[in-house]
Formats: sequence, structure tokens, C-alpha cells
Amino acid sequence: MTEQLQYKPGLEDIVASETSISFLDVQQEEIVIRGYDLIELAQNKTYLETAYLLIYGRLPDAMEYHQFQQDISSQTSLHPTIQTILTKLPKTTHPMDAMRTCLSALAGYDEQLNDRSEACQQARAVRLLGQLPAIVAGSYHILTQDTTPTPDQTKSYTENFLAMLTGRTPAQDEIKAFDQTLTLYSEHELPNSTFAARVIASTHSDMYGAFTGAISSLKGDLHGGANEAVMHMLLEGKTTEGFLALIERKLAAKEKMMGFGHRVYMRKMDPRAALLKRSLKTLTESKGDTTLYDMCVAGEAYMKEKKNLYPNLDYYAAPIYYVLGIPISLYTPIFFAARASGLAAHVIEQHSHNRIFRPRVRYLGPRGLKVSNDDGKTGE
Amino acid sequence: MTEQLQYKPGLEDIVASETSISFLDVQQEEIVIRGYDLIELAQNKTYLETAYLLIYGRLPDAMEYHQFQQDISSQTSLHPTIQTILTKLPKTTHPMDAMRTCLSALAGYDEQLNDRSEACQQARAVRLLGQLPAIVAGSYHILTQDTTPTPDQTKSYTENFLAMLTGRTPAQDEIKAFDQTLTLYSEHELPNSTFAARVIASTHSDMYGAFTGAISSLKGDLHGGANEAVMHMLLEGKTTEGFLALIERKLAAKEKMMGFGHRVYMRKMDPRAALLKRSLKTLTESKGDTTLYDMCVAGEAYMKEKKNLYPNLDYYAAPIYYVLGIPISLYTPIFFAARASGLAAHVIEQHSHNRIFRPRVRYLGPRGLKVSNDDGKTGE
Repeated sequence: MTEQLQYKPGLEDIVASETSISFLDVQQEEIVIRGYDLIELAQNKTYLETAYLLIYGRLPDAMEYHQFQQDISSQTSLHPTIQTILTKLPKTTHPMDAMRTCLSALAGYDEQLNDRSEACQQARAVRLLGQLPAIVAGSYHILTQDTTPTPDQTKSYTENFLAMLTGRTPAQDEIKAFDQTLTLYSEHELPNSTFAARVIASTHSDMYGAFTGAISSLKGDLHGGANEAVMHMLLEGKTTEGFLALIERKLAAKEKMMGFGHRVYMRKMDPRAALLKRSLKTLTESKGDTTLYDMCVAGEAYMKEKKNLYPNLDYYAAPIYYVLGIPISLYTPIFFAARASGLAAHVIEQHSHNRIFRPRVRYLGPRGLKVSNDDGKTGE
Repeated sequence: MTEQLQYKPGLEDIVASETSISFLDVQQEEIVIRGYDLIELAQNKTYLETAYLLIYGRLPDAMEYHQFQQDISSQTSLHPTIQTILTKLPKTTHPMDAMRTCLSALAGYDEQLNDRSEACQQARAVRLLGQLPAIVAGSYHILTQDTTPTPDQTKSYTENFLAMLTGRTPAQDEIKAFDQTLTLYSEHELPNSTFAARVIASTHSDMYGAFTGAISSLKGDLHGGANEAVMHMLLEGKTTEGFLALIERKLAAKEKMMGFGHRVYMRKMDPRAALLKRSLKTLTESKGDTTLYDMCVAGEAYMKEKKNLYPNLDYYAAPIYYVLGIPISLYTPIFFAARASGLAAHVIEQHSHNRIFRPRVRYLGPRGLKVSNDDGKTGE
């Protein structure tokens, strides 16, 4: 009797999962990650510590953290088959699609692919986290320049990741800024991509499947693709005046403004955006050119005044990545690489308390049509 | 205030989409496909006619059907890059994973990848339908035997598909039985894989992304993987007595019995299974060996008596594919290839009336933990 069931487009405000991983507390404006405030984690812990917290359920002690870093560093080389695939893909492939193809292919190398035990899945998550920097970097550099970034296992995870993306040795303040964005992207309750991963995992499907689905979701410009869209707008605007004029034109044309608003935060400021706004200020000041920061601040004030909308995380992450010298088409793949730790936690949790997702529809089409078969198999 | 929201595990009985594509009418026990009864379509129309109905919203006339067949036949060759990728993948890759990797890679060749117009997406669906038989067949034969099945564009879609799967020319009754399974698998409202595809498409992501997510979902043994699981049970049982003893052992061990039950049909017979049961009878009689049919009938009666559960589509599709000589690990890829027409319709419909899926959670984890930072960045 689905006719009598309530329908909420996009499942807005419908609880789809119970979870102990994270929660957006919109009343207290806190992003809770396994009990901790995400903003505190981003200010005081590294991305890898937060990844450990997500995957194992608690922060690591010094020994555990050291071992975790070693385990991840030992996985950072690009698999030869993955490199071959990247070489063969058409040069027009979007890095998100290239990354998805690589992760999909990696499933064939997993000898414990059907092992759903928590320990095995945690080990799988560690392997994938280790491999992602080379896959992300390769998804751009191999395709566009036929150069294969080489990982340096003596560097920290974040320094190595950033160096592979940009092809140069980053400064300490750059590493710190990049690491903070990874932590802020690591987990965020049940956005579309995490939901897609849990829906897929609920059939008992594996982590590679859940991850490929999440990449596909994140690629959409209503989701992860927003950070790339923001950067293209900033570049098109060129100056503060140009940027504001561009926003004005987009608002007049009733186009969706990327980088603003968030269904769950509604009309409050995303605390992640607030932290990255400060980070962008510091970073642009140390570079001696605050143009991008000034443009963003002006755009933020304009959108607040005209539409009462606040910027979200993507709005300030995009210019940070630009200042760090990262190719724009890698912004969303980086988002995914950071989110992989949260996604792994959700896949493991889904498998531990599973009920397959199988909702219903409200049918609006015709009924009672008859198949005429006068002319055999050639149509009506 | 998600604490006050109702939580239905697996979104059971929650309406997640409005649709004009299909509807499971559990009262009247009818699977409605754009107004038609799916069983009538399977009895009177070909799979390709049903695919046209799904993609374009109505059955084709003779001219349209002829053109549609030609359009699909012209796409049946395996792309050289896809062939290379299949050659490079490890031999242990599951055909579902190989197919997913191929579909993911194809995105890079789509010059209109970001075109979401209905006409463009319909044309994309036609291309993908055309390419799927070679991808499905290649996902097994290239990996296991290094032989590349060659499409024959002079054959009908279904004859060519079956010939590529088995490597031999099928008889007319085999083609008809195979075609009927494709129609019955083509569309089924909002199962997990279709839901995953719509969730992904709702970010404005593309058809390749939605399809890779659906493949990942279908692979799970609670969903599409069930048909392979059924066949392994039949082979393990060997005889009717052996099969019933195996079922008895599984029930005693409280293992889930694949091929029985369906959340939406609950305790009624899946009309698709009823049709395929007759088809299996005809096919095994014409082969002169009804062992598999007899085993299935006995297993059906046993499960009805012991658990009051009816068989679902997978239970009778599996032995049909076995009798047709199709490798077992291709059963789920075939399910996907058939479902691709329905999935394409859902992606197109989702893009035409979009609201991004973004549900909430009920948080069960701790709150108020503090990050101690005494030892810098090395943990708590």
C-alpha cells in the first residue's frame, strides 16, 4: 500500500542508518566524530590520526600511530597493472573516472575479497588509504603528462601526498594546511556518497564496490564536484569586482551557486568552512598575495547579504588547493581520498549490523495497458 | 532533531522515489512496467522491445524496432582499450568486477559525458546495451581462456549474446528461453541496485557512475549474487535427495537460503519465478534430462512446507542458465546486462525530476570526548 506512505523527496530528514561514527549536531553546530569535535581534531590531530580514529574507533597511542604510519607508507607504490590501465585510458578521462576504474580493478588482487571480518576489512582500508595518493596523482599526471609520480616513503603521508600531486617539495605550512583539509573532508555523517556506499555494502558487497559507488556519487556537481566548480568561478571572476559581478549574473539567471548552502546546516555557517577561511588567510599572507582570500571574503559577504546563504567547506577548500598548486581536476579525487577513511568505517559498520536497503516507490505511471500480439514480435 | 525521527532499518516500506517506470503491486501480484504486465511482456515481446519500452516510455512500432535493433547491433564490438584492460586484469578477477572496471573506463570515451538531455542519455543507453554482451562475455572468456568472443551482427541481439557467452550457436528454443530471462530481469521497481543507481544519479553524476554503483550492489550475495549461489547449491546437491538434505542442513544451521523469499513479495509466489519454472520444464524436457527441474520442484515444495517460503526469480533462472551452458560466474553479469535497460530509464527519470538523496542518521556513539594535545601530534 505504498500509496498511503509518506514521500520525502531525497529522503530529507528520514533516518536511514544508525551509526556510531559521526553526527551533525545542527543545534550545537558540532560535527561529532566518534565522540570528538571534528574541528578540534583538525586543529590538534593529523589526518592519519583521525583516519585511525574512524577505522578503529579510537585515537591511536604513540606506538599504534607509528605502526599505522608504517603500514600505510609500505603501500604507497602504484600497482603495475594500475599504471598500465592509466596509461591505456583515453587522455580525456576525468581523474574521478580514472580513479574509479583503478579502484575497481584492484578488487581482483584482493585474495581475501570475500572476507567480511572486521580485522580483514580494517587491513583492507589501510591498504587502500596507502594506495590512494599514487592513484589520485596518477589519475592526472599519467593521463595528461605521461609522467608517473614517485612516492617517497621517507616522507609523512600528507607530505608525500601533496608532493605527488604537485611534483615539488612542499613547505611546512603548506603540508599543515593540506593535512587540515584532509581531516575536514574525512567524515561527515551521511552525505550522498556515504549513503551510496552503505546502500551498496548492504547487499554484502565488498569495500571496492562501495568505494566505486561513492566515487561515482562524489563526482556529481551537486556533491563533491562543487569544489572544482568554485575554483572555476574564482578564476573566471579574476578580481573581487569580477567575481561579484559573476555571482550577480548567476543569481539573476537563477543558476545554483556552488560552494554555498548545505541541506543539513541550512542557514548556519559550516564550521569547517570557518576553519579553512582562517587557513586560506594565513596561507595567502605567507605567499604575499591575498587576492584569492579577498575575493572569497567579498563573495561570502555578498551571498550573505543577497541570499542569506553561508559558504560551505568546498568554498574555502578550493582556493587553498589552488594556492598549493594542485591541478583543479584533482580537487574532487582528493576529497574522495580523504573521505575513504570515513567510508571504510561506514562499510565495516554496515556489515556488522546489516539490513539490506530496499525502499519502495510511489508509482505515477499508467496501469492496465495490454500487449497486443497481432504482428508477432515486431511491436504493438 | 533526528532523535525523534522514526527509523526503519533498510528503509523498509519507505517511499524513496516517485516513478513512472515500474511498480510491484503486491495486492494484485502484478509487476507493472510502464503500464504493462511484465509477465505479458515476457510472453509476447522480446527483451529488446521491453528495453525500448523502458528507455523511450512506449513499445516501438515495427520501423522503430528495426532501427533500434540496428542501432544496438552496430555497437557490439569490444572497444580495443576495454579488451586490453581485460587482458591485463588478474585472472582471479570476478566477472562482475571486470565488467565494472570496463564500464567505468568507457566513461572516458564519451564525448557528451556531461550532457544530461534525455535524447543524449537515451542514445548513451543504446550504446551501452549494445556493448554489454561483449563486455559480459569478455569478462569471463578473456580472463579465463584468453579467447575473445567475436560478435556476429547478423544475429539477433539475444542470439548473439547467448552465442558469445557459450561459444556455440544456440537452438531456437534456447534463444527464446534466454530472451525471456532477460525480459524478466529487465526491471523491478526499486531493488537495492536500482536505488543505488538513483542515489548516485541524484548528485548529477552520469550514467556510467550510476551503472558502476549498480554493478557493485548487484554483486552482493543478498542481491544479484543469489542466482550464482543457487546454482552452486544445486551442483553440490547433485540429486533431489542430496539437494533436499543440503537444504535441511542449511536450515538447521540457520543459514540464509538463497533463491527463496523476497522482501516485497513476502509470502507470495514471484510471478517471474512461476514463468521460468515452466520454461525450465520445457527446456529440460527438450534436452531429455529433467534432473535439474525435478530437483528445483522438490526444493520448492520442501521450502514451502518447512518455511512457507516461495522461490524467487533467481531460483529458476540459475538452472536455465546452466542448461544453456553458460559459465556460472556470468549469471550475475547477465542479470546486470538485462537490468541495464531499466537502470538507464531510472537514471534518465532521476535527472528529469531531481532531488539529491541526503538522509540522516540516528547517532549511537559517544559525545563530548576531548582531544588531549599534551604530546603534540602523536596521539592521546
